[in-house]
Amino acid sequence: MTLIAEPKAMHFDTPLPLQSGASVRDYDLAYETYGTLNADRSNAVLICHALNASHHVAGAYAGQPGSEGWWDTMIGPGKPVDTDRFFVIGVNNLGSCFGSTGPMHVNPDTGKVYGADFPVVTVEDWVDAQARLLDALGIHQLAAVMGGSLGGMQALSWTLRHPQRVRHAAVIASAPNLTAENIAFNEVARRAIVTDPDFHGGHFYQHGVVPKRGLRIARMVGHITYLSDDVMNEKFGRQLREGLDIRYTTQDIEFQIESYLRYQGDKFSEYFDANTYLLITRALDYFDPARAFGGNLSKALAAATARFLLVSFTTDWRFSPKRSREIVKALLDNQRAVTYAEIDAPHGHDAFLLDDARYLSLVRAWFARIAGELGAAA
Amino acid sequence: MTLIAEPKAMHFDTPLPLQSGASVRDYDLAYETYGTLNADRSNAVLICHALNASHHVAGAYAGQPGSEGWWDTMIGPGKPVDTDRFFVIGVNNLGSCFGSTGPMHVNPDTGKVYGADFPVVTVEDWVDAQARLLDALGIHQLAAVMGGSLGGMQALSWTLRHPQRVRHAAVIASAPNLTAENIAFNEVARRAIVTDPDFHGGHFYQHGVVPKRGLRIARMVGHITYLSDDVMNEKFGRQLREGLDIRYTTQDIEFQIESYLRYQGDKFSEYFDANTYLLITRALDYFDPARAFGGNLSKALAAATARFLLVSFTTDWRFSPKRSREIVKALLDNQRAVTYAEIDAPHGHDAFLLDDARYLSLVRAWFARIAGELGAAA
Repeated sequence: MTLIAEPKAMHFDTPLPLQSGASVRDYDLAYETYGTLNADRSNAVLICHALNASHHVAGAYAGQPGSEGWWDTMIGPGKPVDTDRFFVIGVNNLGSCFGSTGPMHVNPDTGKVYGADFPVVTVEDWVDAQARLLDALGIHQLAAVMGGSLGGMQALSWTLRHPQRVRHAAVIASAPNLTAENIAFNEVARRAIVTDPDFHGGHFYQHGVVPKRGLRIARMVGHITYLSDDVMNEKFGRQLREGLDIRYTTQDIEFQIESYLRYQGDKFSEYFDANTYLLITRALDYFDPARAFGGNLSKALAAATARFLLVSFTTDWRFSPKRSREIVKALLDNQRAVTYAEIDAPHGHDAFLLDDARYLSLVRAWFARIAGELGAAA
Repeated sequence: MTLIAEPKAMHFDTPLPLQSGASVRDYDLAYETYGTLNADRSNAVLICHALNASHHVAGAYAGQPGSEGWWDTMIGPGKPVDTDRFFVIGVNNLGSCFGSTGPMHVNPDTGKVYGADFPVVTVEDWVDAQARLLDALGIHQLAAVMGGSLGGMQALSWTLRHPQRVRHAAVIASAPNLTAENIAFNEVARRAIVTDPDFHGGHFYQHGVVPKRGLRIARMVGHITYLSDDVMNEKFGRQLREGLDIRYTTQDIEFQIESYLRYQGDKFSEYFDANTYLLITRALDYFDPARAFGGNLSKALAAATARFLLVSFTTDWRFSPKRSREIVKALLDNQRAVTYAEIDAPHGHDAFLLDDARYLSLVRAWFARIAGELGAAA
């Protein structure tokens, strides 16, 4: 039976102070919930999203076939994060283009669309906004917070900013900060967007245009880094688009991989907001809990009291296993409870979103233990 | 003592047939030579260049301090490729923007600048053009052909198209073809250029503009792939540009790595031709000697009779050691003489251009043996 999802929105009229010193005066957060909050409100699981995702985590919208949430393999009735046992919350982050207040919305201070004036938001800001949503939902403590990639950074940040509100944290295919190479790829994407003549300094909405050229390039670069070299060779290799004949062209498509990338870029440029792309890649760049501790991650993670699940994937070169092991080591330095698995998967960074039996079984077992602690048998 | 380099040009008025079926009616090749051709014309070494390089391989131009050639660490009097013993030839490839006939020149058939109409050229076409240059210089057989990266592909191609004309071949930091990921990065760069409104379908010259936005992005992407993750972390890490304070900005520079990449992109866009970039990345994409042999590289390399030096660098993820080992294996399958070294170097693909003692010593020893065979003692 398919889970039916219903998008909701919560309005907040208390200004949210941001790490930059700015604040958001009032805002909406789009969210969805699946399952039922138990009587003592102890079975809530918060799911944090990555770059190109939203509050629509699981289930499908009524009457909309193919509208499954982005982590529907993971979350639902009888699934690894079992909505028959847990009350699962998906939330869209501030600055997004999928429902929560972001650059496409009107700035109440000016009456104009924010555009590039939307304040810079960080992982920590998102976590604080999510905490207010939990307050509004009457949830003091999460059974677990969970996320992959940038979502994993939020899960980690939850354990540091609100340690008493998180019993467990699942940090998947993530990292304690970006490497110089990660930042470099983000910067290429941003430059492609910002230097697109249709960007107009981020105020393109009022010109009735969208910097699609830049968005396409941004997505193409990003997409390459989500996949492994191996899986690209397996899926596309050196296959030509037009069968066996080389056409000798510099501007047209020759190889299948080019066709695939262009398609991904085109599709993305149709629905993703350019200012949101800048904001979210910057949140990735800035995340670095060790920074306030002179680069010492072990000191930074001393505040965390949650029990952790860390998962990495062997072929993930964007957030490599080595980066997850840094988090594991820092937690162990603090005698924290950590389960760590390095999953042998061919799909690169994207593996965290895919249907991999070993990975899903592991997460299932980890959540079953949490459910057992609740006494919330299905 | 600095070697003084002098650029030369050779004109060819016999049409060069290309792999695409097109031809170049008449053309110039820019070249330089260093050292002296011996009496039996047996000491010539041809150097093939990679993406962003030219015939100016070694030495410096008189009265121009800092004008050293791109492989001046490798080639010169007393250097690994010793110009006191060898007659070294650097040649600029067709389609380049550094002197040989290319997209910026006038098409004699139309009287207009070629632009995007310059024919697609391949590694094999370049090798054939280089062979004609040797004919004109009265050199029947090379003591060695040598190149790194795309230059290594040319060296390998020489041993297949003109096996009797090459006694030794040095194929450095190269590959038997590009992977899907390699092609993908090239395609991102090409799309950035082609979709720049200043590209005008490749005929931007007549509009008095240059697609600098696209060239900048192309160079930034390329540059990331030339460096290793390690060396980027070591050189830039997460250092902020403005000292200790985060400025919270999405469009301005925040990290040193961003500043570095923007600088590289800006510099490149000032001197590199956009159509040349398309042509050269396509030549990389197309190179695949195994293609005509159903993907069997061992069969493809059966034609080669030269003695080989293969060198790869441990942190090179653009042309990884694994790719060099494929060439080594295919040569050994044919009982060819191969020296192979995998150099432990932190610099990624760029390592082949750098001053690494073990690497240079190896090349020195290999060329000393060739010089010994000549009886051409210094």
